[in-house]
Amino acid sequence: MTEEGLAQGLIDLLSPGQVMSGEAVERAYDCDAYTVHRAHPQAVVFPKNTAEVQKIVRWCIENGVPYTPRGAGTGLSGGSMPAHGGVIVALTRMREILQVDIENRTMLAQAGCANLALSKAVEDHCLHFAPDPSSQTVCTLGGNINENSGGPHTLKFGVTADHVLAVTLVDCEGEVRLVGGEVGGMPGLDLLGFVIGSEGTLGIVTEALVRLTPNPINIRTMLAAFANSDQATNTVSQIIASGIIPAAMEFMDATILQAVEAAFHTGLPTDAGALLLIECDGDNAESEITSAEEIARAQKAVQIRIAEDADDRAKLWTARKKSIGAIGRISVSMVTHDGVIPRSKLPEVLDFVYKTAEQYGLRVANIFHAGDGNLHPIFLFDDRNPEEVDAVVAAGEAVIRKCLAEGGSVTGEHGIGVEKIDLLAEMFSPEDLRLQDDLRRAFNGGNLCNPGKVLPSQKSCVEVRVRRRAAH
Amino acid sequence: MTEEGLAQGLIDLLSPGQVMSGEAVERAYDCDAYTVHRAHPQAVVFPKNTAEVQKIVRWCIENGVPYTPRGAGTGLSGGSMPAHGGVIVALTRMREILQVDIENRTMLAQAGCANLALSKAVEDHCLHFAPDPSSQTVCTLGGNINENSGGPHTLKFGVTADHVLAVTLVDCEGEVRLVGGEVGGMPGLDLLGFVIGSEGTLGIVTEALVRLTPNPINIRTMLAAFANSDQATNTVSQIIASGIIPAAMEFMDATILQAVEAAFHTGLPTDAGALLLIECDGDNAESEITSAEEIARAQKAVQIRIAEDADDRAKLWTARKKSIGAIGRISVSMVTHDGVIPRSKLPEVLDFVYKTAEQYGLRVANIFHAGDGNLHPIFLFDDRNPEEVDAVVAAGEAVIRKCLAEGGSVTGEHGIGVEKIDLLAEMFSPEDLRLQDDLRRAFNGGNLCNPGKVLPSQKSCVEVRVRRRAAH
Repeated sequence: MTEEGLAQGLIDLLSPGQVMSGEAVERAYDCDAYTVHRAHPQAVVFPKNTAEVQKIVRWCIENGVPYTPRGAGTGLSGGSMPAHGGVIVALTRMREILQVDIENRTMLAQAGCANLALSKAVEDHCLHFAPDPSSQTVCTLGGNINENSGGPHTLKFGVTADHVLAVTLVDCEGEVRLVGGEVGGMPGLDLLGFVIGSEGTLGIVTEALVRLTPNPINIRTMLAAFANSDQATNTVSQIIASGIIPAAMEFMDATILQAVEAAFHTGLPTDAGALLLIECDGDNAESEITSAEEIARAQKAVQIRIAEDADDRAKLWTARKKSIGAIGRISVSMVTHDGVIPRSKLPEVLDFVYKTAEQYGLRVANIFHAGDGNLHPIFLFDDRNPEEVDAVVAAGEAVIRKCLAEGGSVTGEHGIGVEKIDLLAEMFSPEDLRLQDDLRRAFNGGNLCNPGKVLPSQKSCVEVRVRRRAAH
Repeated sequence: MTEEGLAQGLIDLLSPGQVMSGEAVERAYDCDAYTVHRAHPQAVVFPKNTAEVQKIVRWCIENGVPYTPRGAGTGLSGGSMPAHGGVIVALTRMREILQVDIENRTMLAQAGCANLALSKAVEDHCLHFAPDPSSQTVCTLGGNINENSGGPHTLKFGVTADHVLAVTLVDCEGEVRLVGGEVGGMPGLDLLGFVIGSEGTLGIVTEALVRLTPNPINIRTMLAAFANSDQATNTVSQIIASGIIPAAMEFMDATILQAVEAAFHTGLPTDAGALLLIECDGDNAESEITSAEEIARAQKAVQIRIAEDADDRAKLWTARKKSIGAIGRISVSMVTHDGVIPRSKLPEVLDFVYKTAEQYGLRVANIFHAGDGNLHPIFLFDDRNPEEVDAVVAAGEAVIRKCLAEGGSVTGEHGIGVEKIDLLAEMFSPEDLRLQDDLRRAFNGGNLCNPGKVLPSQKSCVEVRVRRRAAH
């Protein structure tokens, strides 16, 4: 189908104001926040509700056109990049909150709602939607579900899967399904758990029923600055070993904090080697923060700041949440990696990250969720320089392989997307990957919905499938 | 294969001391704690490790013999009942704790370990395994995983799936797989979530790596007695509405508490219409219990007891945990149902339970996890009287349909097993069931592993499968 024919087909289906195409659009939607791999869509379509998504999916199936769902495009592994071209189904105009049930602490919302908008809608009831990715002012509920997103408060509250009761899914045959239910722990095989985190490869999530969490009370937030990163990671280990699980515990290194200060002037100590942002809440917040402070001082913290009020606390968090944006001031491009390791391996693996950067001649910044061992090394580079691109890819793979070798995972919260497909094969056996592929095919046999993501090429799997079917 | 041939085959594979057969064995293993449906196994085999389980599974596949995993047999929906005969693979001799990692708060254990034994093993480190079914002194880790078990503290800590990082699975082709990993939230499609709660239909779980949870500090436990059940359920609603989430909040009605007192003499007020057992912990336990007490008094609680020390607290919990056993004193048989409803519907549905029992001329006892809306109506009957059996089945279905009508689920923690297969079809669309069946077949195409459970008969699905395959 020609690009014009494709756009016109979608306009006939919906309305001209809901379809965009042309060269500028191709460029604007050729990647998400993972900029290393790009592919052009032929059109971008903006449905307003589930029925319109269903129309689009059915049209794509009839015409054999690949389609890829997209929220705010803040994904970090290429999940909403249109790997096989075709149509981007942008859910950003589906941002209605459909129902709030305070008594049962649930909310029904369209998938295009921004994460933070969900919490804002119930702040008067002292409730919020717990997952809090750094991009939460813009990233969408649907994106959070597809990526099973976490954030600083994952340590205390868990990932998105822990907060979703049901989703409305336009499946890969164009049917509308309700997956999950009003109460948690639905019986039968766990389709909901399977859809959450499937990175948009099993259908398009259009609405979700989510749990609301009581806002924390009595929050205490502390910033501790150290001369070097070992002192900071030792502090993390000792805090956890002492039995305290802070609501959040974030690590930022010198590169990060210099970038943040240059951009936002939040008053961070720019001569420090590493920072920890530690937050405790509840009635025992005061004693926990005091213990954390003692541990940090024993590790020779050069500066300790405890937020005096909500404004002060917001300022400390702004520094953390805007840090990725701040890096734009000191580098043309960056790749944020996302490995997970058992907490006890933090100092060793962080050391490996710095050595790897040195080996490849790259600058690296480190900011991560220390409490749950979720590393986020950020390699800085110029994407116009092919040699630097190669070095960044190689360094990233070295780091992720180190995480695997230490019993960890290739991703904590950013997903596989296109970025880590090859690494998945180092994490799972061929038989495990075939099983995952068999399961995916039960949902998405036509492979038009977000093709080219998550699982390695399915060529070899087809043979296996035939063999397995023949066996019974 | 003859019964003798089957037993001899297994003895040749392992050793005589690990295989049991004969009439007494057939009767002893023809059901779990759900006694309505029964079927005889031809043999029961007791492997000691994963390699032996693999041998058994491969032998069963070669010989076309169905096999069913079994832990302590405390399941409440027939999950370990050998519906198609064959071999019971009893995991109760696999009770070794293989590894404890205090720093990363994890434990690797064999599937036959009793739930409470896991917690006992780490009590010196002030840690425990959080899921706490009433049967926790005997029920096994593997059973908890297969049923995705909950317990009184599910309200605070979540179900078994929230506490399992990885399992070793002998799959339905006789291969040993590691599903999950040392860190949570593994990438790719969520096989672990799929295996947990699949009721032993996707393979045999032989070992698991579980999370350990810090023991609660500063526990306050309160028993409140009310003249009637409405006052108790109103207290539940108001406590939750006030923003308190107790660690546990358990409801017991008059029938239960009379049975418990007759059996154990724990000093419960036998003239009350309903009891609530409420537990709070953490630094704010005192203020939470005080608030709960005020709410209970406003609802005209006739007696309030707050446990004075650990012994007193243990006594109150013994009453709750042994209540199911106590019912044995007042009835020949019982069926415990397990519906879930949004919390706000508790008074209405409880009322419906009592009216339904009256309508069918049955005695009913109610004991349940009030905080998460998980009802457990227990119908008392004599299983030698076919009319009573019919009435119990009909009354149970009426209650479960009511739960569905109120936006709930047919099971919260007891599973589908054989008991609720037909009801599942009222909860899911045919297309949803077909999808679940397609997914199950990807794991268990030969249908020898725990056949006849969870999903309705797969006959119609085969046609659909063929149609779906032909479409692409």
